[in-house]
Amino acid sequence: MTASQFRHRIGDTVVTVLDDDGQPLADRDVVVEQRAHAFGFGNIGFDYVPLANGESDALHDQAALWFDVFNTATLPFYWSLFEPERGRPDTERLRRAAQWFADHGARVKGHPLVWHTLAPDWLRELPTAEVEATVRARIRREVTGFADVVDTWDAINEVVIMPVFSNEEQVNAITRLAREKGRIATVRLAFEEARAANPGATLLLNDFDMSTAYECLIEGVLEAGIRIDALGLQSHMHQGYWGEDRTLEVLDRFARYGLPLHMTETTLVSGDLMPPDIDDLNDHQPASWPSTPEGEARQADEIERHYRTLLAHPSVQAVTYWGLSDEGAWLGAPAGLVRADGTPKPAYDALRTLVKGEWWLPPTTLRTDHAGRVEVRGFLGDYQVHHAGRTASFTLATAGRLDHVKGVLR
Amino acid sequence: MTASQFRHRIGDTVVTVLDDDGQPLADRDVVVEQRAHAFGFGNIGFDYVPLANGESDALHDQAALWFDVFNTATLPFYWSLFEPERGRPDTERLRRAAQWFADHGARVKGHPLVWHTLAPDWLRELPTAEVEATVRARIRREVTGFADVVDTWDAINEVVIMPVFSNEEQVNAITRLAREKGRIATVRLAFEEARAANPGATLLLNDFDMSTAYECLIEGVLEAGIRIDALGLQSHMHQGYWGEDRTLEVLDRFARYGLPLHMTETTLVSGDLMPPDIDDLNDHQPASWPSTPEGEARQADEIERHYRTLLAHPSVQAVTYWGLSDEGAWLGAPAGLVRADGTPKPAYDALRTLVKGEWWLPPTTLRTDHAGRVEVRGFLGDYQVHHAGRTASFTLATAGRLDHVKGVLR
Repeated sequence: MTASQFRHRIGDTVVTVLDDDGQPLADRDVVVEQRAHAFGFGNIGFDYVPLANGESDALHDQAALWFDVFNTATLPFYWSLFEPERGRPDTERLRRAAQWFADHGARVKGHPLVWHTLAPDWLRELPTAEVEATVRARIRREVTGFADVVDTWDAINEVVIMPVFSNEEQVNAITRLAREKGRIATVRLAFEEARAANPGATLLLNDFDMSTAYECLIEGVLEAGIRIDALGLQSHMHQGYWGEDRTLEVLDRFARYGLPLHMTETTLVSGDLMPPDIDDLNDHQPASWPSTPEGEARQADEIERHYRTLLAHPSVQAVTYWGLSDEGAWLGAPAGLVRADGTPKPAYDALRTLVKGEWWLPPTTLRTDHAGRVEVRGFLGDYQVHHAGRTASFTLATAGRLDHVKGVLR
Repeated sequence: MTASQFRHRIGDTVVTVLDDDGQPLADRDVVVEQRAHAFGFGNIGFDYVPLANGESDALHDQAALWFDVFNTATLPFYWSLFEPERGRPDTERLRRAAQWFADHGARVKGHPLVWHTLAPDWLRELPTAEVEATVRARIRREVTGFADVVDTWDAINEVVIMPVFSNEEQVNAITRLAREKGRIATVRLAFEEARAANPGATLLLNDFDMSTAYECLIEGVLEAGIRIDALGLQSHMHQGYWGEDRTLEVLDRFARYGLPLHMTETTLVSGDLMPPDIDDLNDHQPASWPSTPEGEARQADEIERHYRTLLAHPSVQAVTYWGLSDEGAWLGAPAGLVRADGTPKPAYDALRTLVKGEWWLPPTTLRTDHAGRVEVRGFLGDYQVHHAGRTASFTLATAGRLDHVKGVLR
């Protein structure tokens, strides 16, 4: 668990266990256990909106698999789906979904506030100045309305391609806006509105383009004085696992801006790979794309290697996998960690073995010293210490130095 | 000559021809002819530095071919070649070459002031702050020292790849500088120094990357308030002619920044094409790369189509072809318009037929009216009117409106 490549993830803390009268619990056996990871192990929560709203109980069991590994849910705020008819946003259902995740202990992220794809058709009819005002109002509405449950937003998505996106019959209004205002002004308006609406939120710039184009965009945005809280890097690996070398090369290139990196959209398929000549992944959606035994073995190997690589890099703050189940997966790809029939694939077990195994402190008996102290070492996150039916909570908050905390049994 | 797609290149001017006593030369035949193009028909002048310096007369005849088509010479200021030993720049030879081109009526451009490739080895030993100071001093020295003969500079070259350039054994000092300062700060220092050294110069940002990466860079640079006079677009087409559609798509994409476009490095080979999988063109340099009859026919067709496309686009202000002769051509490619034996290829004739044929007003007899007026219509540039052994000069300076000028015969 404490391999040196993860030392930036690991806290070392002396916990003084106190009875509820404030006296140290000296020379006693206590049970210490981890309760939550500080690291963001994310997945999308799109499929559970009906369950959270009491519309369907079908995914009840699958949700248990979700919560057993993941602690951060990305919820869909795709504008054309969220507000297909102008002025009638799907706010209440999404609020209940967000609250449901929060009630289950998950953090909630919104995706995305501004994006050219899935821009509503009704937006296209508006003149550009009105498009901008409408985009600004939509950002304020969502970020304000969800401020108590959504603490992280993809403020704007895929800006590199935004003003020249052409994979559609009619130019959408967001592409028009970005083309007329320029990329940086468009990024600025997204961050400006979201920041004003919730100054405490973590706001991301998110992109799939890992080339120098994204670097150039980031440098321009930072030079323009726009504050970004984290860089979102997509990694839909339908055309094959990047491998450790490319992954590290990408991480190092984007880490040099000194911002946390979020791997916002991560997929590895457990079936045939998409042909390498496909440019826009949306252009390849075969009628049938099955998960195969060989593919599942490969996926399990790759997901373990990939998460190891990501967590070993100090800049990575969160990794969101893109879908738990193959059922309804993007592009119909077998990119889930659970088969369409609801059974876990080897990749699910491989990831769980890391998140709740190698990187997790299970209930462990430790003996307090004469001053009631135990030393706890583990992945940063929330912990509990138990004794005689009572519990104290504490947090491993910092890597790289010995912390001291008190835990009062109650 | 006056096809409508070139109307932004064509001036329409009423010339009042005056005798040297100021009286209109009424009802007389005069001969009008074009002397020079306003449009920048450029080519590199690297090969003629020895000729200009009286070191060799070998290219005397080839130079005549050069001046018959081209009016703008790009001269090499590659730092490691210009100043291989620190403090001993090749200034005098380059000055004589620049002056020689100017004396022959050509405008002169310097290429490039800042570039990671061909950065001098001695620069690598310096700490980054000193690299920056040395780069700044070098820019000031060259731009100031050549201010009377060089009016256009590639201020900085290939910034998109600059901080992540890795196709070399040791990281060069310019890549290090760009990586530590960021692209935009590096662009700023180049333009800042060059602008201060010669406020009247035309300063270019130049790149080979025609993707969204260059767009993002440009937007960041403009947003940062750095004044760019023209965007340089390279187009080394060793892997095949872009064709009209891609050319127009590129031109339109970069024209939207409202800046003049210079096609700074244009090549079309008259032999085998480079395989499409080569990423860095420098990685493909076969021992022999001959010009072929079929290749020469193709090149002639492509060069005519390409120049027609470029001149038909209002944003294009200059096109520089990259080398007149195959002798010593970049990568050993048969990209010249003249064979290694000095004979013109069909592409040379095709280009000359445009520049000095279809787009050129040859000596033409016109009759002045009762007020001594003739109307001259032609590509923007310098013209003369002759009568009885005397000559008046005038300029067609503006497209799209009827101008009136006077020409006094002397």
